[in-house]
Amino acid sequence: MMDEQHIDALAKLLGDKGVVTRPEDKEAYETGARYDRGRAAAVLRPTTTAEVSAAVSYCVRNGIALIPQAGNTGLVSGSTPDVSGSEAVLSLDRLTRQFELDLDNRSVRVDAGFRLSDLNRTLEEHDLFFPIDLGADPRIGGMVATNTGGSRFLKYGDVRRNTLGLKVVLADEAGTVLDLDCDLRKNNTGVDWKQIFIGTSGAFGIVTECVLNLERLPKQVATAFLVPAGGAQVLPLLNAMEERLGAYLSAFEGMSKNAIAAAFTHVPSLKNPFQGGHIPDYVILAEISRSSAPRAEEQPLDAVLETALAEIWELEEAPLADAFVGPPHETWALRHALSEGVKHLGKLIAFDVSFRRGDIMAFCDHMKAEMPEKFPGVTVCDFGHIGDGGVHFNLVVAKDSPLLTDPSFEQRLREWVFTVAVEQYRGSFSAEHAIGRRNQAYYDFYTPEKLKEMAAGLKTVTSPGKLGSVRFG
Amino acid sequence: MMDEQHIDALAKLLGDKGVVTRPEDKEAYETGARYDRGRAAAVLRPTTTAEVSAAVSYCVRNGIALIPQAGNTGLVSGSTPDVSGSEAVLSLDRLTRQFELDLDNRSVRVDAGFRLSDLNRTLEEHDLFFPIDLGADPRIGGMVATNTGGSRFLKYGDVRRNTLGLKVVLADEAGTVLDLDCDLRKNNTGVDWKQIFIGTSGAFGIVTECVLNLERLPKQVATAFLVPAGGAQVLPLLNAMEERLGAYLSAFEGMSKNAIAAAFTHVPSLKNPFQGGHIPDYVILAEISRSSAPRAEEQPLDAVLETALAEIWELEEAPLADAFVGPPHETWALRHALSEGVKHLGKLIAFDVSFRRGDIMAFCDHMKAEMPEKFPGVTVCDFGHIGDGGVHFNLVVAKDSPLLTDPSFEQRLREWVFTVAVEQYRGSFSAEHAIGRRNQAYYDFYTPEKLKEMAAGLKTVTSPGKLGSVRFG
Repeated sequence: MMDEQHIDALAKLLGDKGVVTRPEDKEAYETGARYDRGRAAAVLRPTTTAEVSAAVSYCVRNGIALIPQAGNTGLVSGSTPDVSGSEAVLSLDRLTRQFELDLDNRSVRVDAGFRLSDLNRTLEEHDLFFPIDLGADPRIGGMVATNTGGSRFLKYGDVRRNTLGLKVVLADEAGTVLDLDCDLRKNNTGVDWKQIFIGTSGAFGIVTECVLNLERLPKQVATAFLVPAGGAQVLPLLNAMEERLGAYLSAFEGMSKNAIAAAFTHVPSLKNPFQGGHIPDYVILAEISRSSAPRAEEQPLDAVLETALAEIWELEEAPLADAFVGPPHETWALRHALSEGVKHLGKLIAFDVSFRRGDIMAFCDHMKAEMPEKFPGVTVCDFGHIGDGGVHFNLVVAKDSPLLTDPSFEQRLREWVFTVAVEQYRGSFSAEHAIGRRNQAYYDFYTPEKLKEMAAGLKTVTSPGKLGSVRFG
Repeated sequence: MMDEQHIDALAKLLGDKGVVTRPEDKEAYETGARYDRGRAAAVLRPTTTAEVSAAVSYCVRNGIALIPQAGNTGLVSGSTPDVSGSEAVLSLDRLTRQFELDLDNRSVRVDAGFRLSDLNRTLEEHDLFFPIDLGADPRIGGMVATNTGGSRFLKYGDVRRNTLGLKVVLADEAGTVLDLDCDLRKNNTGVDWKQIFIGTSGAFGIVTECVLNLERLPKQVATAFLVPAGGAQVLPLLNAMEERLGAYLSAFEGMSKNAIAAAFTHVPSLKNPFQGGHIPDYVILAEISRSSAPRAEEQPLDAVLETALAEIWELEEAPLADAFVGPPHETWALRHALSEGVKHLGKLIAFDVSFRRGDIMAFCDHMKAEMPEKFPGVTVCDFGHIGDGGVHFNLVVAKDSPLLTDPSFEQRLREWVFTVAVEQYRGSFSAEHAIGRRNQAYYDFYTPEKLKEMAAGLKTVTSPGKLGSVRFG
């Protein structure tokens, strides 16, 4: 708990609504979206950059540790306090005032507390959107802190690619406000400081305002389930699709049989399009889209997709075993049900890893081959973004498995997965969830000493105060 | 000149060919592409990252200042030594051994000394390219140091967007090699250190190896000259094109009447497509492209462009006054002749500025209106990348103008242009040439003290030795 004197001082800066201390009101801010429950000394809820600055300055001068929190939808314990009760949460949930749309520049300036869904609902009437497609509904500041990518990375890139500018409050005694909020696409006049705050879990500063690149909303979409002739044919199939559909290709999502089966079980209303209902070993959801309205002169997008698939069908390598063009809402319904479906199979141990595109299937096959001997009873239910190399490598343990009574099991499993992913396949232990407390040990283990030393130096010149759940110092 | 003892020691590390000391051999490395002539203590030409590291270590330990140089095609004195004769050039021109193509990952790992043209010639047989389209032919390391964008930024982005990984040698006593050469698209496991070396003119480290994202070569291209109904119609026209052509739109280049006239004068063989040969006040070169081969079922790309233009023609706002669809090689021939044409009009004073897209025409109109009174006899010959906000704001002074005998003229002109661009229009004083010695004063003037302090701190934790032409410390 926090000293009464500090609470009063912060309430003077932020108003009574700006400081939350009642246990029942703090609870939502202390609880992670999937894992963990911590204890907050208090929750601070500023409404402007100036208030963030004042609160941060006060906390730094008084040695109070701050955990920045945006939508609190992350899965790596990046935005919740630890169990000590000594850390205060600084929530962005009331930092939602500013919204300045620049239609000519195709950009928007928003406060970091905006929810992705609210932003996109407002943009929709202008036929625009912020093109990061996620299952969760985070706030923008958190998306910056984790550099999320999502399911349409292949076409639109990640948050880093779509961020033009930021305003950041540093954890120093002054609560310095860094004005990196330029709305230019080409600007090379020194260090591009905003990059330091993207994907670093809020440890170097609190993002309070963002200038974002916008894209035009797709007006035509066509999707298909593709069945590759085998695991080794997934990449040739992707290459054949990229060659034929180029900039139209907006998703190429892989789904394993186990993950699909779990989704069908959990959501029985889902349509099963496969011959006789038999789920293939691996299925691709391919999507193409364009932002122009349909024209009489143009081939409809479904037909464009079918033409490309017919060409691929005839290829000598024969990467394609089967294909089902279907309406986007049905196709995506299956994809979106995977995550919940897998969670209901048993205890979920999830990994967000990434690879060179050509290594994804090799990694998954490797693990599936060794799993029965290394960890009998653990089921692999992977799915992922083949187009950009990201894999949701989900492992499920039946709830009555004896493994769950072995206190060392989860740690041994994690270490094995990361060892193979990072050391053998040169992959990443965090594709788009950043670090957080859950990945701290892997940051410490896999980061070369020199880079850790540089990060500590960077911490000193930006935010020397106690900020964020990750130790870079 | 450099001490004999140092020359011998460096020759032991780099071989005899690795150290250039004869004045006639050094000259090309001392001379900028457009401006300046300096004097190099010596030119070092390592062939591997290990040799770069050894040379840098030696120079740091002996207090020898190094200027990294790649293709030496920049225009801001970033890669040539000053006139003191005390700085050594470290050239990447022999660092061209490694070339590893990963077709499945659509990426390539290359040594930083590769020329853009050599890289793309090699990639062409695989229907791939590194999609940064420039007039010059730089080496990759220099493109990273300046974060160039070029004419197809609208579709493909800049070097930053297309860089997956880097290997960097730091200017510290050990000549530390930073291995940031990952080939992943999604990877958020700490500070994304490679960002620090992109666009910072080589001051924080020497890039020796790059992993680059590749795109598929366009197989169909259609272009047109568009005549907007007026300066205020340029952005509505761009918006109308983006709305109708989406991801096809690969260039939207603006060209002023003065710049076009200069090109026609300099290259009389250029085709003049305009009615009666009368050049409009402003012309847009629009390009659409796709990477798939033409198909019988699909509307040809020329027809796609014509359909969109016909729709725009009917719009109530009437942004379009005239349009000429023509073969890409003819259309681009005019665009590519602008730079040389303008140079032949007189003394060229060039600015590489950028703006929010909606401010480009307002800035140019503002300057054209005030120029006759402020600087009579100076002609504005602007052209630029409207789609991404970059403008080549070229000013030409007739060779016999009395202005050129006024020693304060050029300085006064520069300050006026930058004051209006940066302070009034919130633009950038360097869109894609980075800083270099020529922009140092503007960096010093326009960068907030806190950011300068952070840059000095970053310099200390990366490359404390004397490196590069820009002072960030």
